[in-house]
Amino acid sequence: MTGRVVALSGGIGGAKLALGLSRILPAHELVVVANTGDDFEHLGLAISPDLDTLMYTLAGLADEAQGWGLAGESWGFMAMVDRLGGESWFRLGDRDLAVHVERTRRLRGGTPLSQVTADLCKALGLGVTVLPMSDDPIRTRLETDEGWLNFQDYFVRRHCEPRVIRLEYHDAEQARPNPAILAALHDPALRAVIVCPSNPWLSIAPILAVPGMRKAIAACAAPVVAVSPIIGGRAVKGPIAKIMAELGLVPSAATALAHYDGLLDAVIVDPVDAADPGAYGAHMAVTDTLMTTLAEKTALAARTLDVAQSVTLAR
Amino acid sequence: MTGRVVALSGGIGGAKLALGLSRILPAHELVVVANTGDDFEHLGLAISPDLDTLMYTLAGLADEAQGWGLAGESWGFMAMVDRLGGESWFRLGDRDLAVHVERTRRLRGGTPLSQVTADLCKALGLGVTVLPMSDDPIRTRLETDEGWLNFQDYFVRRHCEPRVIRLEYHDAEQARPNPAILAALHDPALRAVIVCPSNPWLSIAPILAVPGMRKAIAACAAPVVAVSPIIGGRAVKGPIAKIMAELGLVPSAATALAHYDGLLDAVIVDPVDAADPGAYGAHMAVTDTLMTTLAEKTALAARTLDVAQSVTLAR
Repeated sequence: MTGRVVALSGGIGGAKLALGLSRILPAHELVVVANTGDDFEHLGLAISPDLDTLMYTLAGLADEAQGWGLAGESWGFMAMVDRLGGESWFRLGDRDLAVHVERTRRLRGGTPLSQVTADLCKALGLGVTVLPMSDDPIRTRLETDEGWLNFQDYFVRRHCEPRVIRLEYHDAEQARPNPAILAALHDPALRAVIVCPSNPWLSIAPILAVPGMRKAIAACAAPVVAVSPIIGGRAVKGPIAKIMAELGLVPSAATALAHYDGLLDAVIVDPVDAADPGAYGAHMAVTDTLMTTLAEKTALAARTLDVAQSVTLAR
Repeated sequence: MTGRVVALSGGIGGAKLALGLSRILPAHELVVVANTGDDFEHLGLAISPDLDTLMYTLAGLADEAQGWGLAGESWGFMAMVDRLGGESWFRLGDRDLAVHVERTRRLRGGTPLSQVTADLCKALGLGVTVLPMSDDPIRTRLETDEGWLNFQDYFVRRHCEPRVIRLEYHDAEQARPNPAILAALHDPALRAVIVCPSNPWLSIAPILAVPGMRKAIAACAAPVVAVSPIIGGRAVKGPIAKIMAELGLVPSAATALAHYDGLLDAVIVDPVDAADPGAYGAHMAVTDTLMTTLAEKTALAARTLDVAQSVTLAR
């Protein structure tokens, strides 16, 4: 099998598996599809948090301890924003800012986000392809007990504290999918679609909400394999378990993966979640899914490809 | 005399005298009019070099050794711009960037430059009023042996190396003067108009090119006093002597001040330029005009006010 692998990813958790995949696949065989539902305009700048987390992680530039931003970052810009009385709840590092300024300049000039992203990746020496799910703006919004909030207002400014009632992916229905993603999915040689252990509601659902995306994944030649973002009823990071409880769902691997609604051929869950294989409605594979070290990221990535291969061989 | 003093200024040299004036005048008695002919858009950001040099200098935040920018600045943004292959010939510090990002955001939102400037000055604790000459864009351009260049291309990117053939203040004829400046000039209690030792062609002429500005200065109740930007045929800083020679002019205090074309009631020149008092076509006062220390800036500022007062008393 020498076809490409398409990985769907949000930010931190997804980027870990994407990094693992990038260490065992030739660069031209990995296509990472990034959620852009978290994108927003802040201080007049176009910010794409998941795209940047993926780009920095895959380029080896990420601040891994922090989970976002660049390693060795400085904060002079934010200090001055504070001094000017500006909005400082969303932290933009000095080096990181160069990416936002460049992206903003080019988007305003009419260049599509996919092209800007490709050029940024190239400038950072990235061989792996990172594709925004769409060049059109789609904005994840949450109805909460404090009213409707934009994603970053909920996630960063309000620290995920408001109770979530429902979510929407604003303007998704009129967005066009990134054609490069559809082309990769339509490729008969496609090797696997990996759904990274990102938040199904906040990170993967926006990708699937882009018209044509879910259908293209369902129809693709390759197995669709998801890694559970939940381990033993808890999220590794982020508000997924809290949101699931607020939506009236039991925070479990099975419930989280059920949100993909029949799209999956196989799931990979942690040993603590392996009790009831029938719960997943798909082939269940069990392996350690907590990724801290690079070795763990690479091992889990290898396991996802093995599972995909076994599904293919069993067909 | 308790009326206000209006000082016309470019960047570095003018800011030194403005700082001196700010040390001997109550804040509400000083109005500094800034050249915005050097303004430009760079990396998609609205940059106003002279406004910022004045603002930083008067707020005590300037990097005085360098002559521009903020003291204690860091350069992470530029390092990343370099890494991304972006344009790095115009250096933007990390803290300085917060001002450009905020100004860009508000200008795009429709707030006039004068209001943005007032709010930035307030946030930095500035009591002195700093007024852009106009809210409309006016761009100083130079015809050179390399063709027409925008000011910053000539000044920063090309280090003033091309030979200047002529200058224009693009779009000046359709610009509206900042009404706050006209109001200050029309005030019968106006105490003095000080033309700072800035480049007459590059810094003061753009201000005078704004429709109504020259006329309002000529008609004002107060004496107009200029400090020579040339000492002994040489500029303290910048390309003024080189440009004058290229324009076919003898680089002297007399020739530089003659560019104000009858607008002046008095000139202040250095002792080395005091040989021919008749050359100035205005009352000549002689004093040391080189400003290095704060004491020298304050002393020269006091002298300009004394000269203005003596002109008033002699009327």
